[in-house]
Amino acid sequence: MPTLGIDVGASKVRYVIWEGNQALLDEEVKLPAPGREELGRVFQEISQKIKETKVSTVGVGLPGTVEEEMVTYAPNFPTLLEWDFKPELEKLLNAPVRLFNDAKAFVFAEVQAGAAKGKQNVVGLTLGSGLGGGIVFNGALYLGKGTAGEVGHEIVDLPNRREAEDFASAKFFQKFGKSPDELRQLAEDGDQTAKQAFNEFGKNLGTIIANLVNLLDPEVIVLGGGIAGAYDFFIEETKKAAAGLIVNPNRKNIEIKKAALGNSAGAIGAAILAKI
Amino acid sequence: MPTLGIDVGASKVRYVIWEGNQALLDEEVKLPAPGREELGRVFQEISQKIKETKVSTVGVGLPGTVEEEMVTYAPNFPTLLEWDFKPELEKLLNAPVRLFNDAKAFVFAEVQAGAAKGKQNVVGLTLGSGLGGGIVFNGALYLGKGTAGEVGHEIVDLPNRREAEDFASAKFFQKFGKSPDELRQLAEDGDQTAKQAFNEFGKNLGTIIANLVNLLDPEVIVLGGGIAGAYDFFIEETKKAAAGLIVNPNRKNIEIKKAALGNSAGAIGAAILAKI
Repeated sequence: MPTLGIDVGASKVRYVIWEGNQALLDEEVKLPAPGREELGRVFQEISQKIKETKVSTVGVGLPGTVEEEMVTYAPNFPTLLEWDFKPELEKLLNAPVRLFNDAKAFVFAEVQAGAAKGKQNVVGLTLGSGLGGGIVFNGALYLGKGTAGEVGHEIVDLPNRREAEDFASAKFFQKFGKSPDELRQLAEDGDQTAKQAFNEFGKNLGTIIANLVNLLDPEVIVLGGGIAGAYDFFIEETKKAAAGLIVNPNRKNIEIKKAALGNSAGAIGAAILAKI
Repeated sequence: MPTLGIDVGASKVRYVIWEGNQALLDEEVKLPAPGREELGRVFQEISQKIKETKVSTVGVGLPGTVEEEMVTYAPNFPTLLEWDFKPELEKLLNAPVRLFNDAKAFVFAEVQAGAAKGKQNVVGLTLGSGLGGGIVFNGALYLGKGTAGEVGHEIVDLPNRREAEDFASAKFFQKFGKSPDELRQLAEDGDQTAKQAFNEFGKNLGTIIANLVNLLDPEVIVLGGGIAGAYDFFIEETKKAAAGLIVNPNRKNIEIKKAALGNSAGAIGAAILAKI
């Protein structure tokens, strides 16, 4: 029986019907605001769209910390803390619902069916409005006591208590007064300032990747999220910076790959995780 | 049959005969210099001391990166890169020899028989001339592709490319013109500058621990190495700084424990690892 995977973002919700390692349906719905009513309407819409399909279980990826099926931290989507939607969604879809962190769902999907397929030890990063992370050890999602993988909140500027997210997410680009998408457009048109912005971003990301390689020594790093669309503009600096900081001489050319499942990775990962 | 564990440090070598989860013998030999001749003489001395005991296997903990039974990085003990002593030691002790990183041997010993006994997910830190680290996941030593756990080389000051070791090892105390031992003595005598030095060290260490908790969410952090002797002078600031930076509200009071096996942990860990 197929599984339903739903990936809830701050401005859109993606959902897939997943069976036999492929998506039978893959749709996106706009979310006008990250509010309770708006999200409720999207869930209604999804239930209507899939009502002909009987699903065995539902996995939901969420932009926040998920612990024992509860959202415990969601600064960019506070509705998720205030509204325990799981029982309502179970009734609506007539199937058990399980909740996951979106970045962890993303990396698990990439290991199961994407850029890191078949790898045992993988770190995935989502480069978006924040910096999300997920860790796979021995082929399984690693959660520690429940919430491991918060790469974005690593302090990488100890004297000023600034975290990785300030250096390698959309937050980094704020000083340029433009969004990462706008800057990518400019870089494609040959704008030097925009290119320089991505160079600097790439260098920062390389440092964060070196930290992860020195600490976790994975086989591959997978990059997803909106900013990964500008991969070609930053990856060279990323690889150079990482190589300069990775301690082990045999790991300096760590494999860094762009995510393969695109915008569907989070929904696919939630669908797969829900079955495990 | 018992196992021999040897922990090679820059100025001393510790060795234990380990059987039935206890040390039948636990000795230390001074190493006048980290050179090939000096270490060769110490190995001779050990072989003489244990010649009445038949050991099944020998584990050696080394201050460097060990990968596939080879030392690949040892900035504080270059002899280890230049001299492949394993075959000589096997002949001398008439038993197979296996090589490990000393900090990883330390944390594994603390999980098997020390402060973190019975825990499944543990991070251990050795606070000494450098900052060593070891990670245990699901009760097993985690090595990634072979060399995971290099906490000390994590960049925690990205703008200046300074690493964790600069903030939370003997290197941090250099600016005070005294060794950690001298400063601990002064702190015990009530010296305010020395106390302040440990407060600052503690705060730095708390930040590094918060990073590890956010990323790996372990059950407990174990602190060993010479500077852990000054635990009482820094732990309060460490816990306060960590609590302020750990994202998950349920993990703010992460358990931080002082190592229980003292100076023998590295040798015990090497002995246990050699049997696995």
